[in-house]
Amino acid sequence: SRSINLAVIPGDGIGQEVVAQGLKILSAVLPQDVKLETEEYDFGARRYHATGETLTDADLEQLKQHDAILLGAIGDPSVPSGVLERGFLLKLRFAFDHHVNLRPSKLLPGVETPLAGQPEIDFVVVREGTEGPYTGNGGTIRTGTPHAVATEVSLNTAFGIERVVRDAYARAQARPRKKLALVHKNNVLVHAGHLWTDIFNKVGEEFPEVTTEYMHVDAATIYLVTQPERFDVIVTDNLFGDIITDLAAAISGGIGVAASGNINPSGAYPSMFEPVHGSAPDIAGQGKADPSATVLSVALLLRHLGYETEAARIEDAVSADLAERVGKPARTTDEIGDALAVRVAG
Amino acid sequence: SRSINLAVIPGDGIGQEVVAQGLKILSAVLPQDVKLETEEYDFGARRYHATGETLTDADLEQLKQHDAILLGAIGDPSVPSGVLERGFLLKLRFAFDHHVNLRPSKLLPGVETPLAGQPEIDFVVVREGTEGPYTGNGGTIRTGTPHAVATEVSLNTAFGIERVVRDAYARAQARPRKKLALVHKNNVLVHAGHLWTDIFNKVGEEFPEVTTEYMHVDAATIYLVTQPERFDVIVTDNLFGDIITDLAAAISGGIGVAASGNINPSGAYPSMFEPVHGSAPDIAGQGKADPSATVLSVALLLRHLGYETEAARIEDAVSADLAERVGKPARTTDEIGDALAVRVAG
Ligand SMILES: CC(C)[C@H](C(=O)O)[C@@H](O)C(=O)O
Ligand SMILES: CC(C)[C@H](C(=O)O)[C@@H](O)C(=O)O
Repeated sequence: SRSINLAVIPGDGIGQEVVAQGLKILSAVLPQDVKLETEEYDFGARRYHATGETLTDADLEQLKQHDAILLGAIGDPSVPSGVLERGFLLKLRFAFDHHVNLRPSKLLPGVETPLAGQPEIDFVVVREGTEGPYTGNGGTIRTGTPHAVATEVSLNTAFGIERVVRDAYARAQARPRKKLALVHKNNVLVHAGHLWTDIFNKVGEEFPEVTTEYMHVDAATIYLVTQPERFDVIVTDNLFGDIITDLAAAISGGIGVAASGNINPSGAYPSMFEPVHGSAPDIAGQGKADPSATVLSVALLLRHLGYETEAARIEDAVSADLAERVGKPARTTDEIGDALAVRVAG
Repeated sequence: SRSINLAVIPGDGIGQEVVAQGLKILSAVLPQDVKLETEEYDFGARRYHATGETLTDADLEQLKQHDAILLGAIGDPSVPSGVLERGFLLKLRFAFDHHVNLRPSKLLPGVETPLAGQPEIDFVVVREGTEGPYTGNGGTIRTGTPHAVATEVSLNTAFGIERVVRDAYARAQARPRKKLALVHKNNVLVHAGHLWTDIFNKVGEEFPEVTTEYMHVDAATIYLVTQPERFDVIVTDNLFGDIITDLAAAISGGIGVAASGNINPSGAYPSMFEPVHGSAPDIAGQGKADPSATVLSVALLLRHLGYETEAARIEDAVSADLAERVGKPARTTDEIGDALAVRVAG
């Protein structure tokens, strides 16, 4: 009989509320014969304040035993900027080699977009997750003096680029439009940019059916708001991916519905699934958070574990729920979760 | 009697066409007693192909003699990516210490925006122009092998940050709303990010009337499309500034109307003014390019040289011209220039 052994990290702020709904939908959608085991972990601001720890080696050892990880949100104003981000989120992505950071953007019917004319938006960003300017490499000298100098070093390897580029080509190949865009800034960041571009072109030879284009990151932000229908699959570096996926979320219904997967395709470590939004401390505990992004992250999680039918069922449910919202009074986090649970079970 | 000694660099593609209109408007707007001298320089793809040169020490020596520089656009597909960008554009910005890269965004009446609901957009981005990941620092080893590694180093100094931050505060202080946002990514790029944040807070003590906020660059892209009216002045790093100013241009009428100044406020070197758009080789020579961005860059140039009345006259003319376009057939580059020349002279 089948089973899923899931690590659950509700985290901070609205993380608690949205993860509860994610689990509700997961239980509702899974076939009877699949045994779901969950173990909750208390990472985030509370643990940090209580123990000073963000993510220890022992924690990683424990997390490693699971099939996948569901995360709500990490981050709180009471913790200095960077501590939980670097000490937990990025540490986990790096430790478990989550090199495919997958962020689909689809403007669903009835969902509001800040763009005029309700454009067709249906693309996925494959963001590199373990290299670039995210490695923490750099430092500061003469801190606090007028002579301070700070550096940030972006590290890029052929190994790291090639595997994520190949993953993106394969995803493009599997989609009807078969289009792949590389987003970088190879006219300025020439060292990393040329490495990315060369590998992108080389790997492309293995995928003759995929149509490719190259686009500078600044130009990409223009096209995302003027011609979003142009995009099918985008592959990009860790930092550019961070920036353009927030913009992509904004144009396709907002971060309330933006899901993401931090994927290790080899399966050597569990992959982690999380909404793109943060912990939103300003609305935490009020039942105002939209759990859709987390629920859609659960769909990505199920797809990753091979439950394609169930993943699609969740996506259809969210899509139908969003379409029904138009003109209706706002519901609580819990009410939305309940409605989705009914839909996926039905 | 007053005089302006201007270096003119039409450059590549549509650069030629739009600069011609910029000069037309400059001549038309200047009072009789101002003597305008211009000297044209042939930098860009042609010169590079003919001589292999992009910008020599002798060129810089000559350019230095001018009061200001007007640039069309540099770049051509026949030149490998990065050669003209690094070898000319960035070399000039760095050599002349253009640390204030000024990019105003204003959605003028009648101008189309991809955003729904015609929001109020009127802000200016002060982009640092001489540091960050733009210094060219970095390298590649084992090029062309599976073991290649490429780095990019972002260099940030207290000196460089403080001067641009102070400039941005002064600009915010001089505007009615007196708001300043720092855009960075200090939760991930902690070394540079904390240096920027610390200096931003410190300098802020000198400007008690200015309201400040900090925003991550990814979040900034969301707010730019969902709440652009939120912004008044933004100060940011070289790369983040590159990215968000293209997005800012896109939402406020497109790069056809986005002007910029590469300013050295000390006056030690001439400042350079250029449209944000590139050389657009696909439409070059067809009279299709909108010269408005270049004409608005001429307004920034005049303001920098102390001709405030004339700068405002140009801005009003462009605003009126754009408002009149609605529903009319497209005009040529030259026709738009002629119409603007009549307006500013009138
Ligand atoms: C919180 C932060 C470290 C993170 C990132 O920059 O990757 C977030 O913005 C994201 O996109 O998941
Ligand atoms: C052409 C390129 C070097 C330049 C930059 O990145 O600064 C351009 O995008 C700009 O914004 O002026």
